[in-house]
Amino acid sequence: MDPLVIFTPSGKRGRFPKGTPVLTAARQLGVDLDSVCGGRGICSKCQVTPGYGEFAKHGVTVREDALSDWNAVEERYDRVRGLKTGRRLGCQAQIQGDVVIDVPPESQVHKQVVRKAAAERAVVMDPATRLFYVEVEEPDMHEPSGDLERLKAALAKQWQVGEQGLRVPLPVLSKLQPALRKGEWKVTVALHRDHADDEERLLDIWPGYWEGRLYGLAVDLGSTTIAAHLCDLRNGDVVASAGVMNPQIRFGEDLMSRVSYAMMNTGGDREMTTAVREALNGLVKGIAEDAGIEPAQIMETVFVCNPVMHHLLIGLDPVELGQAPFALATSGAMSLDATELDLTAINPAARVYVLPCIAGHVGADAAAVALSEEPYKSDDLVLIVDVGTNAEIQLGDKNRALACSSPTGPAFEGAQISSGQRAAPGAIERVRIDPVSKEPRFRVVGSDLWSDEDGFAEATAVTGITGICGSGIIEAVAEMRIAGLVDSKGLIGSAEQTGTARSLPEGRTHAYLLHDGSAEGGPVITVTQGDIRAIQLAKSALYAGARLLMDEIGTDTVDRVVLAGAFGAHISPLHAMVLGMIPDCPLDNVTSAGNAAGTGARIALCSLAARAEIERRVYEIHKVETAIEPRFQEHFVAANAIPHATAPFSQLRQVVSLPDVAFNTGDADGGGRRRRRRV
Amino acid sequence: MDPLVIFTPSGKRGRFPKGTPVLTAARQLGVDLDSVCGGRGICSKCQVTPGYGEFAKHGVTVREDALSDWNAVEERYDRVRGLKTGRRLGCQAQIQGDVVIDVPPESQVHKQVVRKAAAERAVVMDPATRLFYVEVEEPDMHEPSGDLERLKAALAKQWQVGEQGLRVPLPVLSKLQPALRKGEWKVTVALHRDHADDEERLLDIWPGYWEGRLYGLAVDLGSTTIAAHLCDLRNGDVVASAGVMNPQIRFGEDLMSRVSYAMMNTGGDREMTTAVREALNGLVKGIAEDAGIEPAQIMETVFVCNPVMHHLLIGLDPVELGQAPFALATSGAMSLDATELDLTAINPAARVYVLPCIAGHVGADAAAVALSEEPYKSDDLVLIVDVGTNAEIQLGDKNRALACSSPTGPAFEGAQISSGQRAAPGAIERVRIDPVSKEPRFRVVGSDLWSDEDGFAEATAVTGITGICGSGIIEAVAEMRIAGLVDSKGLIGSAEQTGTARSLPEGRTHAYLLHDGSAEGGPVITVTQGDIRAIQLAKSALYAGARLLMDEIGTDTVDRVVLAGAFGAHISPLHAMVLGMIPDCPLDNVTSAGNAAGTGARIALCSLAARAEIERRVYEIHKVETAIEPRFQEHFVAANAIPHATAPFSQLRQVVSLPDVAFNTGDADGGGRRRRRRV
Repeated sequence: MDPLVIFTPSGKRGRFPKGTPVLTAARQLGVDLDSVCGGRGICSKCQVTPGYGEFAKHGVTVREDALSDWNAVEERYDRVRGLKTGRRLGCQAQIQGDVVIDVPPESQVHKQVVRKAAAERAVVMDPATRLFYVEVEEPDMHEPSGDLERLKAALAKQWQVGEQGLRVPLPVLSKLQPALRKGEWKVTVALHRDHADDEERLLDIWPGYWEGRLYGLAVDLGSTTIAAHLCDLRNGDVVASAGVMNPQIRFGEDLMSRVSYAMMNTGGDREMTTAVREALNGLVKGIAEDAGIEPAQIMETVFVCNPVMHHLLIGLDPVELGQAPFALATSGAMSLDATELDLTAINPAARVYVLPCIAGHVGADAAAVALSEEPYKSDDLVLIVDVGTNAEIQLGDKNRALACSSPTGPAFEGAQISSGQRAAPGAIERVRIDPVSKEPRFRVVGSDLWSDEDGFAEATAVTGITGICGSGIIEAVAEMRIAGLVDSKGLIGSAEQTGTARSLPEGRTHAYLLHDGSAEGGPVITVTQGDIRAIQLAKSALYAGARLLMDEIGTDTVDRVVLAGAFGAHISPLHAMVLGMIPDCPLDNVTSAGNAAGTGARIALCSLAARAEIERRVYEIHKVETAIEPRFQEHFVAANAIPHATAPFSQLRQVVSLPDVAFNTGDADGGGRRRRRRV
Repeated sequence: MDPLVIFTPSGKRGRFPKGTPVLTAARQLGVDLDSVCGGRGICSKCQVTPGYGEFAKHGVTVREDALSDWNAVEERYDRVRGLKTGRRLGCQAQIQGDVVIDVPPESQVHKQVVRKAAAERAVVMDPATRLFYVEVEEPDMHEPSGDLERLKAALAKQWQVGEQGLRVPLPVLSKLQPALRKGEWKVTVALHRDHADDEERLLDIWPGYWEGRLYGLAVDLGSTTIAAHLCDLRNGDVVASAGVMNPQIRFGEDLMSRVSYAMMNTGGDREMTTAVREALNGLVKGIAEDAGIEPAQIMETVFVCNPVMHHLLIGLDPVELGQAPFALATSGAMSLDATELDLTAINPAARVYVLPCIAGHVGADAAAVALSEEPYKSDDLVLIVDVGTNAEIQLGDKNRALACSSPTGPAFEGAQISSGQRAAPGAIERVRIDPVSKEPRFRVVGSDLWSDEDGFAEATAVTGITGICGSGIIEAVAEMRIAGLVDSKGLIGSAEQTGTARSLPEGRTHAYLLHDGSAEGGPVITVTQGDIRAIQLAKSALYAGARLLMDEIGTDTVDRVVLAGAFGAHISPLHAMVLGMIPDCPLDNVTSAGNAAGTGARIALCSLAARAEIERRVYEIHKVETAIEPRFQEHFVAANAIPHATAPFSQLRQVVSLPDVAFNTGDADGGGRRRRRRV
């Protein structure tokens, strides 16, 4: 009987004739064993560790001579680069007897990428761009054919790739003849496969066997910041990350002001497009330098972004996104040449993939969140809230999917708050208020100490205490409500009503003094009645959007809430619930997904299957347009209280008891007017 | 029974329910009746002429009321633009009774393009780029989808196009939203289909129904001249033609000197690429202006050219084409964006098709000649000679196909001839020598008069008589042979030997005085012994190449000879045969195909099927490399005589009797030396 070969960790097994190379056996069994050179003993990617002795579990005893002796190729490799003890080259070692062969992780092509935040997420590596080493026939005058045609034939024969058609950009084609001759008819090529049409492209070519690695960029293009992860396309590892401000900010802080800029200024869209593309090129150069790679090794870029950023990136006028019916120029996923987006800093033949948009207000970033969080695979009904200037809200489980966007405004990001600021060092990000003394303590970005702890003053001496950021204002308002400084309508009580001198009169309303830095020349940081109103408007919009989706499927509760977005990562679930930002849900089931959009971009970078999946899923999502839904307005008004009447917060009541206070400062009208203006 | 409908000229017939529009009936029967607007009464392309009365041939009598009355659409069309008497709009007129309907040529989509030169050639119109008028659904907030996605859906539903995938270049995508809104959700689009992969592309978009037409360029990119035909893509009509010098001439007159330039000068290939692309852009602008169209209406360009021109156009270093094994970077047909070739003068989304090359010395121009002449459909064995600096020679019939290139050098084009010049006004192009008096008469380019006819002096007064062009030198040498001024070895006899004072001594050899213009300050035009040698070398190379192909299939004769190339159009078959340029063949069967390469380019422009055909045929051609074939040298030497010994010229002898003279001027060695240097 032929020898039995067992591969670990997969457990795949089969019998093969003596003399079969291990790599051949692995391939025939579908074992995940890497090889770039196709078994020619060049790339050393197919290293394996044979086990010897008795394997009771597998029922075999492996003798010392179960594999052929080291051959010249392995000896040379070991001499030149060193082979770890016990390792063999799978393409050289031949089966001579029963054997158990372990495939170490670094020899597995489909190594898994693990998401850092929250729950782990395994992604099977299936990148669009891969390297192939290939040996090409030399030209023959008697059978003339182009060098490219012979390369294609070799790729088809040796790798079964490019058989559906192989596109070759002209600049790559011009590298072909020199590379073939320099490499003596052996070359390494980078091939890109498009999941949508099976088309393959030759992205680059190197003489002989090329040692380098290919990289991809996952870019989360936000209105405010552009964040990019540089990933190794072989294993998905993030080798460098970088972020820059979106330079479009000079054309308008938020999305609608940028759309207005495009409307009001001829060529304004083009200016913004140029600005963001230049910023991307700068970002690429920096990240490649950080990682110590050549920018030309970056073969792919995946973009996720909201619809306005999407259109401005692609070079489309976003004007239609500023007015009903909010029609996207295109909603489908896009596969482009990097040069079409003027991304000249990366490989000139690099490809770009842009995730599909869900609707005019729910963009490719929301699609990326869905790809990351996979609500469509959930047994539980999950609500995913991506909190930013607009909140993108998704609700669903494996049977249904809904999405909408809600105009929360920028209050959650610290904008339009009297002492508000971005989450930069010196910004108050956590707040606690003693329910009895009404005294606050807080933490600022850049220090782990609370303000009542020893060393806080020293720790914050450099940055100072400069303002309050998004997560800080949410905690402050919630804590004020818990401490009875604010009633359920959102009114701040006077010093008399609350019993603390920190309640300062401010016109006809009051403000709560969080920190007085004036003695050190710093600012006086208060939470004003106006701040409370801004947060109430934002949280009402967020809640109303979520509620609208829940109505659509006829439910009052959800099983899980996922807070996504860079900001979402810092929101305290308890305080979000006290505020009434999110619908009723067991507190333990409120989690943060971190930058889920960025994670989705990375997944799409690593996996063609994921691209196909999200393109299919997006099509199944039922979109709800908040702007034209009368019930949105109803929910919005009803959600104004803290927490609001429609949310029972059953579990919350077991955690905190909200004081039953009611203040009347005559400000109700003022708040009402303000709300009408802003919505 | 339903009314009988008979369409002429196709004769297609069928019965249809009363009320069926004529266009619908035509479509169901597969009758070639045009429509761009899809039967909406907008485009007026579906005009038909119903016949009334008795049609004995068809066995029907057509009553006056066989079609519905004129409706409002037809009345408006007639009022605004006028409808020819008797015409109806096929989409409006409904069948009411038996009827005979004629489809006039201008309503047929697949109108035939007729080749002007020699035999007529019908090409079924099947262009890659066509116009479609389409009505797109308006956006709906409740069912959000991109405008592009709704356009795609409309194209698929209304025209069944783009279903295999529709690519949209970003600049075209950016025109979509404004066009849809300006056209009130009706647009006309130009779609390009690729025969190789069924992929379709959106090349341009116009609001509403667009009246314009689409054009394509067929370009024959020669080493010396670039010739272009601007064709209407609807019917293949040539609406303008233009030619410019290839500016690469400044880098080297012939192909090999350009390859040398690229070898010797870093970036030299790039310089030549830039030069030719700039010339093409200039050519495009001029030809569009001549035709009175917008350059943006040019949606396609087809190129035919030799391999070196091919590589330099595409942007590839031609260095490998200058040395064995003459490897092409790519031999396959190429479909490109015009922008990839920097063809910025035409529509920015225009496409380019480059015919496949046959071998390193036999280019896309030879493929175009094959497409034009279709040797692969011939029952006869046909030899096709494209005469230029290199002669491309094809031999075949429907069972076999061979091709080679032969290094004739530029003598046939008037270069390297003592009084040689290009075929410009003033150049001697036809020559006759009286066998008795040995006196010449001739014609020059620009006049139809012979030099011994009345008015010749006046007719040529402006241009003068400046030199002798390619066809002139061939006739001159052949006539000199017929008149006994030259012997079979190619030696010119002395005045004594030939009996004419026109035989002038020139060193150790003699020259024949064709024209002495010195009295009028013009040149003295002679045919020197060196000229005869140059022509002998050229014709020997041409003959040897043809002979090599004939050897390959074991034949001594061919049934037909086709002379192609702009120069080929002017060669007299008789004189070509006297010279021994071509193998033995009945004189009547030697024809000129004019610029067959240019014709092939036009055919590829008009027909996707033709592109697919030539790509398949090229693959079947057996290539013979003259440079490494010892028999080529043998044939070359044997073919030196006029006419040479290996060619019986059986039929020629019935037409002319060649004098049995032999001169000895001691020049044989000189000629030998010269030949060795040049080959």
